[in-house]
Amino acid sequence: MRESNLIVLLTDFGIKDAYVASMKGVILSLHPGARIVDLSHDVEPQNLIQAAFLLRAAYPYFPHGSIFVTVVDPGVGSSRQILAAKTSHGIFLAPDNGILGQVLGQEGHCELRAVTHKKFFLKKVSSTFQGRDCFAPTAAHLAKDASQFSEVGPLAKERVHLEFPHPEKQRRKIIGQVIFVDRFGNAFTNISRSLLEGKGEAAGWRVYVKGEAKLPLRKSYCEVGRGEAVAVFSSTDLLEIAVNQGSAAQKLGLQAGDPVEIKKS
Amino acid sequence: MRESNLIVLLTDFGIKDAYVASMKGVILSLHPGARIVDLSHDVEPQNLIQAAFLLRAAYPYFPHGSIFVTVVDPGVGSSRQILAAKTSHGIFLAPDNGILGQVLGQEGHCELRAVTHKKFFLKKVSSTFQGRDCFAPTAAHLAKDASQFSEVGPLAKERVHLEFPHPEKQRRKIIGQVIFVDRFGNAFTNISRSLLEGKGEAAGWRVYVKGEAKLPLRKSYCEVGRGEAVAVFSSTDLLEIAVNQGSAAQKLGLQAGDPVEIKKS
Amino acid sequence: MRESNLIVLLTDFGIKDAYVASMKGVILSLHPGARIVDLSHDVEPQNLIQAAFLLRAAYPYFPHGSIFVTVVDPGVGSSRQILAAKTSHGIFLAPDNGILGQVLGQEGHCELRAVTHKKFFLKKVSSTFQGRDCFAPTAAHLAKDASQFSEVGPLAKERVHLEFPHPEKQRRKIIGQVIFVDRFGNAFTNISRSLLEGKGEAAGWRVYVKGEAKLPLRKSYCEVGRGEAVAVFSSTDLLEIAVNQGSAAQKLGLQAGDPVEIKKS
Repeated sequence: MRESNLIVLLTDFGIKDAYVASMKGVILSLHPGARIVDLSHDVEPQNLIQAAFLLRAAYPYFPHGSIFVTVVDPGVGSSRQILAAKTSHGIFLAPDNGILGQVLGQEGHCELRAVTHKKFFLKKVSSTFQGRDCFAPTAAHLAKDASQFSEVGPLAKERVHLEFPHPEKQRRKIIGQVIFVDRFGNAFTNISRSLLEGKGEAAGWRVYVKGEAKLPLRKSYCEVGRGEAVAVFSSTDLLEIAVNQGSAAQKLGLQAGDPVEIKKS
Repeated sequence: MRESNLIVLLTDFGIKDAYVASMKGVILSLHPGARIVDLSHDVEPQNLIQAAFLLRAAYPYFPHGSIFVTVVDPGVGSSRQILAAKTSHGIFLAPDNGILGQVLGQEGHCELRAVTHKKFFLKKVSSTFQGRDCFAPTAAHLAKDASQFSEVGPLAKERVHLEFPHPEKQRRKIIGQVIFVDRFGNAFTNISRSLLEGKGEAAGWRVYVKGEAKLPLRKSYCEVGRGEAVAVFSSTDLLEIAVNQGSAAQKLGLQAGDPVEIKKS
Repeated sequence: MRESNLIVLLTDFGIKDAYVASMKGVILSLHPGARIVDLSHDVEPQNLIQAAFLLRAAYPYFPHGSIFVTVVDPGVGSSRQILAAKTSHGIFLAPDNGILGQVLGQEGHCELRAVTHKKFFLKKVSSTFQGRDCFAPTAAHLAKDASQFSEVGPLAKERVHLEFPHPEKQRRKIIGQVIFVDRFGNAFTNISRSLLEGKGEAAGWRVYVKGEAKLPLRKSYCEVGRGEAVAVFSSTDLLEIAVNQGSAAQKLGLQAGDPVEIKKS
């Protein structure tokens, strides 16, 4: 793994409170040369699926050696572990609640440890804000010297697996669902482009949303008229339901969990 | 133009999704020394007028040589060009949809090019996220070495002009409109201070909002009582309708497009 | 005081407009090496108590020598002073409206000055945007060379004191109130842990919210069932009303100003 002084933060803390700033203050106190980038802090409170989706979408675009800190943590203060994963792309810190499952599935070889050594934490650890007291200082120490990775604590396994909804693959169709709706009202599904490989040309496929609306599969939003719905394989290689210059969520009443099917017409 | 490693981002991507972070990841992967500042990511989806207003308000305060990347782009995936403009102040990247018109009008001499050379893009360009795949890497390359500017593509012209509403200047009055409402409910109009030059003292002017409310023109909010409406020439030199310690948008029911007149009383 | 090139911004400007970006542009124009961190820009417009609470919560976690710029300013354009305070932790800039009171109370020795010297401001100072025209350039100059602190202007006193609500301490109970509700619906009160010292074990205390709901005092959210309300001494050492994996603000109808009592049961 190359080194980098880059720390990427993903939380559900929002930006109106002082939480994110406190984490940044801790990082910069321990490692004044650290560079910090916000992935997002507007994950819906305690929505693990959303956090996993955003992390998976963005991490491949960051430099190798980056440290990704994800704090979305319904179990703060409980006995669940803090995990640190080292892959060929970087280091990932997160509570042991399944958030890392998607990334680890993609990354292949990975050294996974429980973060337990107190020298990586602030001296005074509160029971309600591990983001500031545990995650931020661990990230700072590792950004300063990634060779300390093996000292964070013992080798570990993920104890908690996140029920990330899996698409069902049949001979002439794939059944999936909406997993994320973005700011524009574009709805991302769990159907990835690779599932269609070897199944013939895109032109022959139609997408059915909530068992009703039938959408064409195109390469870009602009291939349908303004205000019309369309399906595309998006920038994250997932099937995306969109409306050209409009909101699919609004037009089709879409939200996370809604069924989406793609089949040969 | 002086060089700078500063990249300023203005989009309508919002900050809850992974879009902005992905752009930053791309930039920092290509140019680890780049510094990135967010101008705003909360432009209303696809509101070009708002984006043009914000860019115009903020860019003069950034260091010379900064690279301004504006991605508000109803036409993503269509054949519209990506423009790169080099002025004495910096480099401006934007879709060819008129966003740059205001800046180019102010900046005087400008070298305008279409960004076409594939070496400035990511290897894999999606049809839905040019911000990450085209704009971000181009900005990173130019921040690293601005002398590559002439290589981005051929000299070009703006093909699309934005219908930015122009004020109408009469002998004893100027007729304009609200173009932007800020977080505080202050309403900015398209009437700039320079339009009043040579027309006598500010004291003699009154401002009419929506043909009704008559407001005094003052130097600061505090010159009227708390909760009272007032017109000032704002920090951007545009006529601004405000309420001292309150919201003009709420008190006067103002929104973009509402008529505003200033006349000699 | 150690030096640092770190500038921390706390405003009520929001992030949809160009205000914060303009301040950053000014800072980076004057001091290209400055590092800027956002504490928060989503203080409710002109809510001084909120700003004081957030500043107090976050500043201790930033490096010594940081410069904290707080611009929440109902009196912009009036004759109120701009204050600069130098403490052992850093430099604090704010309007003279009481925002700094909490910090100065905690920091002990402090050199307090009015910022009046025009060389610290932009050449052209607007009457509506001192954040950009006065605060940002002063911060940049001081981040570049903190020894200029004595030149910003004459020694001064706070003219305005903020009515920060004080808890009432009785023999067997403490009466306080909610001062801040965070994104998760956790409600922070003005009752600090130190008020309970010498009053016996936490286990014996109960918390009464709005004279009704009776909550246990615990060490972490997880010590009550999911969806149940609990009181904890939070990460800021203030009594916090929370709901395990839920929103106390919603469940108990809490907002700033609501009464909270803690007593021996």
